[in-house]
Amino acid sequence: MTRADGRELDELRPVTIDTEFLKHPEGSVLITVGETKVICTASIEDRVPPFMRGSKKGWIAAEYSMLPRATEQRNIREAAKGKLSGRTMEIQRLIGRSLRSVVDLTKIGERTIWVDCDVIQADGGTRTASITGAFVAMTMALQQYKNDEKIKTLPITDFLAAVSVGVDPEQRELLDLCYTEDASAEVDMNIVMTGNGKFVELQGTGEEASYSREQLNHLLDIGEKGMKELFLIQKAVLGDTAEKIGRNTEEKEAK
Amino acid sequence: MTRADGRELDELRPVTIDTEFLKHPEGSVLITVGETKVICTASIEDRVPPFMRGSKKGWIAAEYSMLPRATEQRNIREAAKGKLSGRTMEIQRLIGRSLRSVVDLTKIGERTIWVDCDVIQADGGTRTASITGAFVAMTMALQQYKNDEKIKTLPITDFLAAVSVGVDPEQRELLDLCYTEDASAEVDMNIVMTGNGKFVELQGTGEEASYSREQLNHLLDIGEKGMKELFLIQKAVLGDTAEKIGRNTEEKEAK
Amino acid sequence: MTRADGRELDELRPVTIDTEFLKHPEGSVLITVGETKVICTASIEDRVPPFMRGSKKGWIAAEYSMLPRATEQRNIREAAKGKLSGRTMEIQRLIGRSLRSVVDLTKIGERTIWVDCDVIQADGGTRTASITGAFVAMTMALQQYKNDEKIKTLPITDFLAAVSVGVDPEQRELLDLCYTEDASAEVDMNIVMTGNGKFVELQGTGEEASYSREQLNHLLDIGEKGMKELFLIQKAVLGDTAEKIGRNTEEKEAK
Amino acid sequence: MTRADGRELDELRPVTIDTEFLKHPEGSVLITVGETKVICTASIEDRVPPFMRGSKKGWIAAEYSMLPRATEQRNIREAAKGKLSGRTMEIQRLIGRSLRSVVDLTKIGERTIWVDCDVIQADGGTRTASITGAFVAMTMALQQYKNDEKIKTLPITDFLAAVSVGVDPEQRELLDLCYTEDASAEVDMNIVMTGNGKFVELQGTGEEASYSREQLNHLLDIGEKGMKELFLIQKAVLGDTAEKIGRNTEEKEAK
Amino acid sequence: MTRADGRELDELRPVTIDTEFLKHPEGSVLITVGETKVICTASIEDRVPPFMRGSKKGWIAAEYSMLPRATEQRNIREAAKGKLSGRTMEIQRLIGRSLRSVVDLTKIGERTIWVDCDVIQADGGTRTASITGAFVAMTMALQQYKNDEKIKTLPITDFLAAVSVGVDPEQRELLDLCYTEDASAEVDMNIVMTGNGKFVELQGTGEEASYSREQLNHLLDIGEKGMKELFLIQKAVLGDTAEKIGRNTEEKEAK
Amino acid sequence: MTRADGRELDELRPVTIDTEFLKHPEGSVLITVGETKVICTASIEDRVPPFMRGSKKGWIAAEYSMLPRATEQRNIREAAKGKLSGRTMEIQRLIGRSLRSVVDLTKIGERTIWVDCDVIQADGGTRTASITGAFVAMTMALQQYKNDEKIKTLPITDFLAAVSVGVDPEQRELLDLCYTEDASAEVDMNIVMTGNGKFVELQGTGEEASYSREQLNHLLDIGEKGMKELFLIQKAVLGDTAEKIGRNTEEKEAK
Repeated sequence: MTRADGRELDELRPVTIDTEFLKHPEGSVLITVGETKVICTASIEDRVPPFMRGSKKGWIAAEYSMLPRATEQRNIREAAKGKLSGRTMEIQRLIGRSLRSVVDLTKIGERTIWVDCDVIQADGGTRTASITGAFVAMTMALQQYKNDEKIKTLPITDFLAAVSVGVDPEQRELLDLCYTEDASAEVDMNIVMTGNGKFVELQGTGEEASYSREQLNHLLDIGEKGMKELFLIQKAVLGDTAEKIGRNTEEKEAK
Repeated sequence: MTRADGRELDELRPVTIDTEFLKHPEGSVLITVGETKVICTASIEDRVPPFMRGSKKGWIAAEYSMLPRATEQRNIREAAKGKLSGRTMEIQRLIGRSLRSVVDLTKIGERTIWVDCDVIQADGGTRTASITGAFVAMTMALQQYKNDEKIKTLPITDFLAAVSVGVDPEQRELLDLCYTEDASAEVDMNIVMTGNGKFVELQGTGEEASYSREQLNHLLDIGEKGMKELFLIQKAVLGDTAEKIGRNTEEKEAK
Repeated sequence: MTRADGRELDELRPVTIDTEFLKHPEGSVLITVGETKVICTASIEDRVPPFMRGSKKGWIAAEYSMLPRATEQRNIREAAKGKLSGRTMEIQRLIGRSLRSVVDLTKIGERTIWVDCDVIQADGGTRTASITGAFVAMTMALQQYKNDEKIKTLPITDFLAAVSVGVDPEQRELLDLCYTEDASAEVDMNIVMTGNGKFVELQGTGEEASYSREQLNHLLDIGEKGMKELFLIQKAVLGDTAEKIGRNTEEKEAK
Repeated sequence: MTRADGRELDELRPVTIDTEFLKHPEGSVLITVGETKVICTASIEDRVPPFMRGSKKGWIAAEYSMLPRATEQRNIREAAKGKLSGRTMEIQRLIGRSLRSVVDLTKIGERTIWVDCDVIQADGGTRTASITGAFVAMTMALQQYKNDEKIKTLPITDFLAAVSVGVDPEQRELLDLCYTEDASAEVDMNIVMTGNGKFVELQGTGEEASYSREQLNHLLDIGEKGMKELFLIQKAVLGDTAEKIGRNTEEKEAK
Repeated sequence: MTRADGRELDELRPVTIDTEFLKHPEGSVLITVGETKVICTASIEDRVPPFMRGSKKGWIAAEYSMLPRATEQRNIREAAKGKLSGRTMEIQRLIGRSLRSVVDLTKIGERTIWVDCDVIQADGGTRTASITGAFVAMTMALQQYKNDEKIKTLPITDFLAAVSVGVDPEQRELLDLCYTEDASAEVDMNIVMTGNGKFVELQGTGEEASYSREQLNHLLDIGEKGMKELFLIQKAVLGDTAEKIGRNTEEKEAK
Repeated sequence: MTRADGRELDELRPVTIDTEFLKHPEGSVLITVGETKVICTASIEDRVPPFMRGSKKGWIAAEYSMLPRATEQRNIREAAKGKLSGRTMEIQRLIGRSLRSVVDLTKIGERTIWVDCDVIQADGGTRTASITGAFVAMTMALQQYKNDEKIKTLPITDFLAAVSVGVDPEQRELLDLCYTEDASAEVDMNIVMTGNGKFVELQGTGEEASYSREQLNHLLDIGEKGMKELFLIQKAVLGDTAEKIGRNTEEKEAK
């Protein structure tokens, strides 16, 4: 039996990544995953946070937000509440850590790459869509910086994408949960992976439930399947720049 | 002599209003005015703020925000700073007051219409674009409510739009300032007007400058010209619903 | 027919400005407009905000507050709430912008003039009384600075005052609204003007109402009448210093 | 040898209490103690804080603030900082506790008396002046309430005033320290006392210093002397109402 | 080769759990894991958060904090900063979710179990020690509630504990990282597991690094080994109560 | 008649001070006074707050907090509320001022001693126990600094301890009130004293009550009795270091 929207258990929703979506940022995309839509931008600032000063390394900081009406019910703005929710902070930290794992921070100088992920429409999987889209926006911003000769090589060591997997109440393992699937899932797992198939983040949660090692293995299998498809989409979108990922670093080391 | 972008002094930038831009809100548009792009949504909530309870009247509350990279330089999010700037509060209050002037709040029951204006790209005139777009989003949300028979008439008493005018350093009066014009303007005035040509708001500021009554009159003249064009665009976008604006109220009063 | 307090439609309430009201500030006045009483002080600090550093120009920053019991009902202190209301921010910004329009900031060096307007009794028109009084306090502080030879000329280019006008439910245009008039007004407009009759700020709001261009013109007429009277009072209070307003600048330019 | 301003060691500064200073509050005074000036108002609200609900008792809450330019150097507003300082909180708690000690809270019903002490000019002793003045404002508000027959008796059990004493660097005990004396004092003590000579609060602090029991005794002696003079001033100001303090309660208990 | 402190790669640090550590809470323990010391308390409140009201179910909320000097360098208190860090929020959410997975919330009525984990000394693994200790404190509090006949059965469905695993710079998989190991680890993974060997949470992070599926499997193997030892310690500490875990529920369902 | 717990009116509860309680801080103790338990730590930081920079003097800053379940009813964390209560600020200021009175701040260089008092169990007298314990922790930290030759002498000029006294509803003067005595006391007084019997702080409060000078004298008598016992305990705990208190300073002055 297939899923409510007709997908196979291990089938991604349609994914599109529109590049150069906005005028001002160094890199920007609109990523859509099914009905989920996220604007991801990358901005490069010529300084690092205080704790990094003098390190000769760069930093990547991520921020995540939702428009109040990205969701079925209107949410109160965090700016109006005067503080970020724990969920938002968790997602911001996840996006930042993930992106930092595939960038050679020693090669961008004392600069900060600000990655902003703003969800304009939410239907599940906003944090994984943010990572997948932000990787493209960040790569384009760095490629532009290289074109402008502000940095010598594209300091990206590998592709990076993310997807969710989960277990539904009938104990079926699902790839890429939409909102209604996510809301009823017993287990919800986010996988962030590099182009060569290694894990950067694995966060699997059983809310008022638990899962066996066998289930974990099956979830990872379908997650890897989805990840391969995401990397193909990223490559298609990045065009020539995709060829340079993981390369420039080697060249430089070869010297 | 014409302006930097080739426009006449009293010429609007190209304006488009895309309706049903998002899936979840009762009403939503993407308005573009030149390079300025704002997502406006209207959400209807079945209760009013504490100070209105028991009044049998509804309320309209507006919120305004910018994506961090809507601008040339990245802005720090107000959610991260933990408070709204004075500028944001001023704009939110302006949008809310303006919309309330053309809605018969006694006819929507004790409901709140939340209007969210999120600027995704800024090039001057974001507050006036927000009002012009929000009027359309709100009208569509109320029309939907009428279609669903939650309210009896479309409680909109007139069209509403907004535009900026200003005086440039050469003392020329300009209609619809883009960002670079706005940044160097000696006088900056925002006009909010109803379809029958009456003022709802007039806010004219000379930052480190002043202006004569003659200049004021000329600014109002070109503002009225721009306003007429904006009403034509709103009418085109609203289609049949446009016919009912200012009407249903009369019908009801006729009974 | 005259107004509730017996005034003509275009008649100001009695205005008094007591100078040197407090011991510590460089300039201070108690302005009373009818029953409205505001303490205005001007303090000069030998540095500017971060965004002005290195500009060789000064800055004027205004703060506005009300005692909790300035009003009929006690208000909660903004310090206790932990944040400023939108209304307070709007007024602070208005006062600061207005004062900056008549000071040649290049002639005060990298200094900040802090203007504090504290309403001790409110009966309508607190923001306009604040501007009218603050102008006097600021002028006296700068005159003192000139006397102390910290600046060479009195860098005030013109007089500055403010008044409210409005339209009452019987569609009459009124000058200088007291609280009860303000609470029921359909249109409320604040005018800030220089001594030579030019506008610095014009903010006209129809709360759940609108106004025609004819009404606007009549409002401006009576506003100009009130303004002339306010300038006479400021001149009387400032004595010899009044003679130097707009002068020193010219002298300097003559060299 | 006498003090810098010519006073004897155990001499108060001149004290005046102007009643009915403001129009709106139930009770209000302007108290001046030397150059220190505080506006004290009392407002009665028909409800109590949550922790008192259902207790059939009233509450007294005090708030204290300074105008930014009450002092030699301008202070940043606590509203602008977004939080109260520890010093402000300490003073507010002290004023509230002190006033509660002389009011029979069971006789005012579930009402809150809000006491606001706003320092408009500071020259030492602002917290003690606040208490001495607030007692008068509160008494007048309650007398008005009795006149309006909202309460049956004046529920004030005794007079209440406060004064500071201290030890100067020459080890002299001083009554009623002005700012320069306070700034250099080795010991600073605030005494709050009832009309019958009992302590309500005694707060004696040696900042980077200590004091002996003998010194304490001498400080209390001169404090008591000052207190007697303050009670005479309060009596003079309160007129007929002064006669009823401590009385009505007895009458009622006699029934 | 063994580790800096002489442990085998898959060896836990010494663990002790002192019960009834504090006088007031319904349940409290001091858990020590090597040099890490956490006070865990469980408090039961007779109401639930707003979003749970009317659900006839209970809730478990966790809070986590560190004493400023729990660490080598003094940390600024979050109360002084006025907000919780993202790290603290993440840990609080993790602890709460984990505990909720082994409690039948329908059997405790509309009550909230507040779990407080206060780290008094930190040497790595504070979040996992918090979960392992909090489980015991919560179980004791619920057992007491059953003894007092406020609930019918002990609503705990299984044991719950947590441990960290990681990969060190020499690519060795380690169980239960102390602070110095954690600081240099390339991969850091927290495992939360139930007594029957199922996962509740799995959070594996490569900070500026990634890990293969083989490494993941080995990490899970040594994690499971550590978990079995933690369950033995929990059983020993809980005594008779341990027998009832997972039982009472069955009995009730058998009826 | 003796007290509820069998103590004489002028009898302290059992006091113990465990030194070197925690691993990381320069000085740390666990002080228990009856059922009250406070962890006091002293941390030395190599810089001073901005207002002290360039003064060549050090500073002592104190922070105070309670675990949520230190009390009979769980308290909401101040970190969760986002601000410190007035009570906490008052206690922090009291502890800091008291400790500064017995340290020669000119002899520690531009360093800050951070004193943290964390109440893990509360049964009355937490602020006085904090001061008594913090003095020991601070002395040990400074002795360690002297041993490490970072400072030349132990810059402590005298012993310092604190105790509470009060008047119960039967008008009996009590030494060292436990929580139930404190809750019903009519007068509550905290005394901070140096080893040579001089006052550093005296804070006596009558909440809705007052006290005579005779009562004050009796309270001070029993307070002094308790203080002498506390100094004996501090001396015993400090061992050899106790001998150097008040000495090194003299030696240095003798040179």
